[in-house]
Amino acid sequence: MTSVSPTEPITVRVDLGARSYDILIGRGLLASAGERIAALMPGGRLAIITDATVARLHLPTLTASLDAAGVGSTVMTVPAGEQSKCFAEYQRLCDEVLAARLERGDAVLAFGGGVVGDLAGFVAASVRRGMSFIQIPTTLLSQVDSSVGGKTGINSRHGKNLIGAFHQPDLVLADTALLDTLSEREFRAGYAEVAKYGLLGDAAFFDWLEQNWQDIFAGGPAREEAVARSCAAKAATVSADERESGQRALLNLGHTFGHALESAVDYANERLVHGEGVAIGMALAHEFSARLGLVDDAVVARVVAHLQEVGLPVRIGQIPGQMPPAGTLLDIIAQDKKVSRGALTFILTRGIGQAFVEKGVDPAAVRDFLEEKLRS
Amino acid sequence: MTSVSPTEPITVRVDLGARSYDILIGRGLLASAGERIAALMPGGRLAIITDATVARLHLPTLTASLDAAGVGSTVMTVPAGEQSKCFAEYQRLCDEVLAARLERGDAVLAFGGGVVGDLAGFVAASVRRGMSFIQIPTTLLSQVDSSVGGKTGINSRHGKNLIGAFHQPDLVLADTALLDTLSEREFRAGYAEVAKYGLLGDAAFFDWLEQNWQDIFAGGPAREEAVARSCAAKAATVSADERESGQRALLNLGHTFGHALESAVDYANERLVHGEGVAIGMALAHEFSARLGLVDDAVVARVVAHLQEVGLPVRIGQIPGQMPPAGTLLDIIAQDKKVSRGALTFILTRGIGQAFVEKGVDPAAVRDFLEEKLRS
Ligand SMILES: NC(=O)c1ccc[n+]([C@@H]2O[C@H](COP(=O)([O-])OP(=O)(O)OC[C@H]3O[C@@H](n4cnc5c(N)ncnc54)[C@H](O)[C@@H]3O)[C@@H](O)[C@H]2O)c1
Ligand SMILES: NC(=O)c1ccc[n+]([C@@H]2O[C@H](COP(=O)([O-])OP(=O)(O)OC[C@H]3O[C@@H](n4cnc5c(N)ncnc54)[C@H](O)[C@@H]3O)[C@@H](O)[C@H]2O)c1
Ligand SMILES: [Zn+2]
Ligand SMILES: [Zn+2]
Repeated sequence: MTSVSPTEPITVRVDLGARSYDILIGRGLLASAGERIAALMPGGRLAIITDATVARLHLPTLTASLDAAGVGSTVMTVPAGEQSKCFAEYQRLCDEVLAARLERGDAVLAFGGGVVGDLAGFVAASVRRGMSFIQIPTTLLSQVDSSVGGKTGINSRHGKNLIGAFHQPDLVLADTALLDTLSEREFRAGYAEVAKYGLLGDAAFFDWLEQNWQDIFAGGPAREEAVARSCAAKAATVSADERESGQRALLNLGHTFGHALESAVDYANERLVHGEGVAIGMALAHEFSARLGLVDDAVVARVVAHLQEVGLPVRIGQIPGQMPPAGTLLDIIAQDKKVSRGALTFILTRGIGQAFVEKGVDPAAVRDFLEEKLRS
Repeated sequence: MTSVSPTEPITVRVDLGARSYDILIGRGLLASAGERIAALMPGGRLAIITDATVARLHLPTLTASLDAAGVGSTVMTVPAGEQSKCFAEYQRLCDEVLAARLERGDAVLAFGGGVVGDLAGFVAASVRRGMSFIQIPTTLLSQVDSSVGGKTGINSRHGKNLIGAFHQPDLVLADTALLDTLSEREFRAGYAEVAKYGLLGDAAFFDWLEQNWQDIFAGGPAREEAVARSCAAKAATVSADERESGQRALLNLGHTFGHALESAVDYANERLVHGEGVAIGMALAHEFSARLGLVDDAVVARVVAHLQEVGLPVRIGQIPGQMPPAGTLLDIIAQDKKVSRGALTFILTRGIGQAFVEKGVDPAAVRDFLEEKLRS
């Protein structure tokens, strides 16, 4: 027996009763994918769903590992980018998985970022009413966020992620070395979600990030630890609240403002990627909490300083191009959130690691706040 | 308060933990749909998915009842027939449900036979990763079979029901008066599934059917009882085995042969509808069991006699047109079932109400049997 991975991976267990599974995190883990999958599902075959960019950079390593372990596979490639999360690709992939004569005991493997994970996961959920599903997330965002929690889906012309299923994977392999080829901008965007876990509920983790972010960006051992702690944070929330009724809402810290900004620029990634929207949104959530007297200005300054130091935007004014007025942003927020009896729900905070759900936010206060922020 | 239904409906509880729900069965129940739905989901709105035939015959009664109870609804109609269980209709309906601005607390209502139920159920499972779902089945088959169990889905070009989800309804209303407008042939086909419940596990029910089938066909009170006992039988099996690993397989009595016959005629309904295939399949399963020495010829004769008496076919020769040779039928069966190490799985029987799963059936014995049956 040769060692399958340079170092032993970190294991994060996601506890969901009969649907529990492991997330393995380690540098160079991809080379051991074949062995690990063969052990999980002896004799099983795979439909590998990936995007063109990931296929070019990393598919040979994956298929070599599968071949060496004797795991049969068929590769299905979609164009890179959000537009692949659509009905047409979903239908094509469902038909291709069936054409490959995969059965319920075989598995769909998502090899890519959140786009591939969401799309492939929905295919896995649907073919024969649910096939096994393995994730090998290749972006920081997908390693720390989208591959945990079981949400899968595609976009409709009425909005993002509106069609889909809850479908848990059987195994997640997060190889942090894959992130070496990610653009600086995509890496930073994923880092916004990492910082979010500290800010929403784990002050010690945020402290640690402030100390270790450079090693995380550089690909040192802190990267595995950051991914593992993030997965553990999300996994704990998801286990407590699989179908998103209460506590899971905390994961939306920074996302209410963030989504409004993404929507305001029509999801034009040249102007704003999701993680950048989240970074600005988290800064705004802290500033708004300070405005409501919930948290000290010094805490806000510390949060903003860290986001800036890693190169993330923190002000609406940093988004290139014209932004709509505060009233329009508020409308987007109100629509998104289904205003209940005139009040808005926001994730606010009382300090680092002390976020909470506030259901009684006054829309007028949000508008005043946004008006001021649009001027600054 | 006026009485909402001429007689109190029969309630069958489907026990699935947090996803448990009631099936109500009664003549004239449709007129009380609005009140019942308003009580179940106060303030909720509906997307009614139906087919053109059902809409023409029964939609006015439903919408009048909803309007009277103040339940808002939008109607979405698909063409009648199996070809509506396709990706194109699925996508269109998902988009229409979103366009109607239904939220997760609102519901999709399936108003039609098994085609509408399977399609609408998959839409309900997918929009916002799962909306509430109400079934008002309008065929005998859908009242006793497809509306119970949570299987939803569409067809792919690779085969029937290959894309879908498990999604349980929140309420099922089975109005037996709706069956008065069903063609004799469709009613009889549904009756094959009713008889199946007796044959697979409830000899007393089969006795009762022999006594009461005329009242069931005529729309007397035995009809409600037959629907209720059938639902209860399926519900018990489904509760015991929601995701179809063991016991649920008994529901396939008559279906292995039946599916092969349906496939052999390319699902041409003029030649064979599903329930007719099941009737012939049940006759064959009993005859084959007798051939293997499992059951007396007298039992077989009794089963065949009852199916014939209600007008169902019991011999392959009753299917109009040319049938393929035994080898082809066997190939279809083997493909369908994934031959495991050369042996076939069949539902066989030791007597009325005594069906069981036999995994070690010799393909050669099946072929010899079919060869003989094709000649008779
Ligand atoms: N399911 C969930 O819970 C959840 C949570 C958050 C986000 N999401 C979804 O995730 C998606 C965004 O995910 P994402 O940011 O990973 O986007 P993505 O999948 O589009 O990946 C971003 C880009 O990076 C490229 N890429 C991926 N891996 C690479 C690598 N190792 N090296 C170089 N390039 C690589 C991709 O080809 C793509 O161009 C959105 O669709 C969002 O809705 C889902
Ligand atoms: N989900 C399950 O567990 C399950 C189980 C068995 C069958 N099915 C599916 O059910 C479908 C067959 O169901 P079905 O037999 O109800 O077919 P169907 O829905 O096509 O209905 C048969 C015909 O009867 C018409 N009709 C419906 N109600 C009527 C009424 N009250 N009066 C007059 N005409 C009426 C329909 O318009 C249609 O033309 C198949 O697609 C099959 O795969 C699903
Ligand atoms: Zn996010
Ligand atoms: Zn059937």
